[in-house]
Amino acid sequence: MSRKPVVRMAELEIDPGTLEAYRALLTEEIEASVALEDGVLSLSAVSIRDNPHRIRILEVYADQEAYEAHLQTPHFLKYKSETAGMVTSLTLIDVDPIAMRAKP
Amino acid sequence: MSRKPVVRMAELEIDPGTLEAYRALLTEEIEASVALEDGVLSLSAVSIRDNPHRIRILEVYADQEAYEAHLQTPHFLKYKSETAGMVTSLTLIDVDPIAMRAKP
Repeated sequence: MSRKPVVRMAELEIDPGTLEAYRALLTEEIEASVALEDGVLSLSAVSIRDNPHRIRILEVYADQEAYEAHLQTPHFLKYKSETAGMVTSLTLIDVDPIAMRAKP
Repeated sequence: MSRKPVVRMAELEIDPGTLEAYRALLTEEIEASVALEDGVLSLSAVSIRDNPHRIRILEVYADQEAYEAHLQTPHFLKYKSETAGMVTSLTLIDVDPIAMRAKP
């Protein structure tokens, strides 16, 4: 099992009529994941200002095992099922960190 | 002066022949900015795995004033001048945070 961090960027498009509900479900999922899962290091979701139904999420997990455990959590499964009809496009991009720094 | 955080995503393409040098200069700039500037809250640079000369940076500043101060720092100006010939494309995307959480 690799101990290398897993970093990914998700690009989503949301049905504009469901955007408010989607944002609430995403926020709930992000807060629960970082609070409850040791292996979820950070989740940063933003919307593009000129096109706010286009959303990007930068995801950092401690390792592959942490990522796979995340996919089985009740809060992730709730998010996934409740937003299934809201997400019109989802692209997952594997990325590698160059430098990631944040204030403590 | 707005006290709202300024969040931005930069998408860059780097001349592949200069990629190693570019990555070192970017890393140095990120480490200095977060260490030395109170208003630089986080900088996260990643490369796309299938196309590592394509780089994305998620930037979070405390407010507009902090962002403008950052542009005048010696470390940013050094990065900007030394990488000018390496960056073949730069797109800056204004984004708005939905939820951003990280382990303390």
